[in-house]
Amino acid sequence: MDKKGLFITVEGGDGSGKTTVLSFVIEKLRAEGYDLFLTREPGGNKISEQIRKIILDKNNTEEDKKTEALLYAASRRQHMVETVFPLLDAGKIVISDRYIDSSLVYQGYARGIGIDEVYGINMFATDGRLPDLTILFDIKPEEGLKRIAAHRGQDADRLDREKLEFHQKVHEGYQIIKERFKDRFSVVDASKPLEEVEKEVYGILKTRIDSYLGK
Amino acid sequence: MDKKGLFITVEGGDGSGKTTVLSFVIEKLRAEGYDLFLTREPGGNKISEQIRKIILDKNNTEEDKKTEALLYAASRRQHMVETVFPLLDAGKIVISDRYIDSSLVYQGYARGIGIDEVYGINMFATDGRLPDLTILFDIKPEEGLKRIAAHRGQDADRLDREKLEFHQKVHEGYQIIKERFKDRFSVVDASKPLEEVEKEVYGILKTRIDSYLGK
Repeated sequence: MDKKGLFITVEGGDGSGKTTVLSFVIEKLRAEGYDLFLTREPGGNKISEQIRKIILDKNNTEEDKKTEALLYAASRRQHMVETVFPLLDAGKIVISDRYIDSSLVYQGYARGIGIDEVYGINMFATDGRLPDLTILFDIKPEEGLKRIAAHRGQDADRLDREKLEFHQKVHEGYQIIKERFKDRFSVVDASKPLEEVEKEVYGILKTRIDSYLGK
Repeated sequence: MDKKGLFITVEGGDGSGKTTVLSFVIEKLRAEGYDLFLTREPGGNKISEQIRKIILDKNNTEEDKKTEALLYAASRRQHMVETVFPLLDAGKIVISDRYIDSSLVYQGYARGIGIDEVYGINMFATDGRLPDLTILFDIKPEEGLKRIAAHRGQDADRLDREKLEFHQKVHEGYQIIKERFKDRFSVVDASKPLEEVEKEVYGILKTRIDSYLGK
């Protein structure tokens, strides 16, 4: 292995609480003296932001799903080149809120392009740099959507059926991906109370980081 | 073969005269009653134009070459979906001024990403739809650059050395690609006088189109 740095990604459907948990755990680890870089795509660089604008432009109704997947890969590439690769090359620990698996699940599986096809363009985009560890926040789609609705003060019973179906697809997709990449996946039951999830994620991260640092 | 339509592409370095020759020959064939669609990337659709704007933005100096290749592929995808596929599906004859081989040569070879890697993302982008015929306008890079300079009223001797080296790479790239895809390539010596080149391209196109139409 001549991989440099430690590259950890965090994945999960909407409402899994991953972003909240992550920011809490990272702060805790930093307070203990760990030097960690937290990032998320598109990562704030100018070109990736310009690309995201095209993807998210609601007037672009004719955008094909493969065009979208290529744009996500282009945005990811630029984020890697400008932010992640330089840190990893310097031996740093980088934690990214979402990465390649999000594309495999959302574009590849849920939108139906095909996991292998989306994997191919992302291998190109990332020079084949897979994460060393991926933490999956696993939660039933009904549960995740209820949380989002509650968060927004909406009536959870009025959940859009189409939305639920899409979230179920995303959930199925993550089950496939975590089996395919068993070696690097660590699955957390995100339906547990927040404090328990935080404790578990803290433990997983600390163990992996200490092992990287030779502690 | 369950390919629908007839898909012809035209390729060549700058100054090869392909665009001029093509528009003359297409007009001639149309005057004879042939129903032909001439297009060129990005093809005028909104999303591809937005993508091109990012690629061509001179302020985006930090743009990585793989990001650029993915953006070209995304722009190509949208052009295929909005313009080319519907015409081919309807059995039409479509002629495109540049297509996938331009990416293989410019990004894959001349910029050094690798032909196979760029081929992969473009197979994704085009659903693997290669041209049925590709006409290559072959011209020595010195010759092509002289023509461009003359056209612009510049002194041909003051050609930028770096520019010449890049054009030589492009020329080498086309030699590799035409060997790799022998079956669909037809090479025209573009250093000949314009009238001769037009005559030759006319002949190649007419023969291929008549054969497609079963004439």
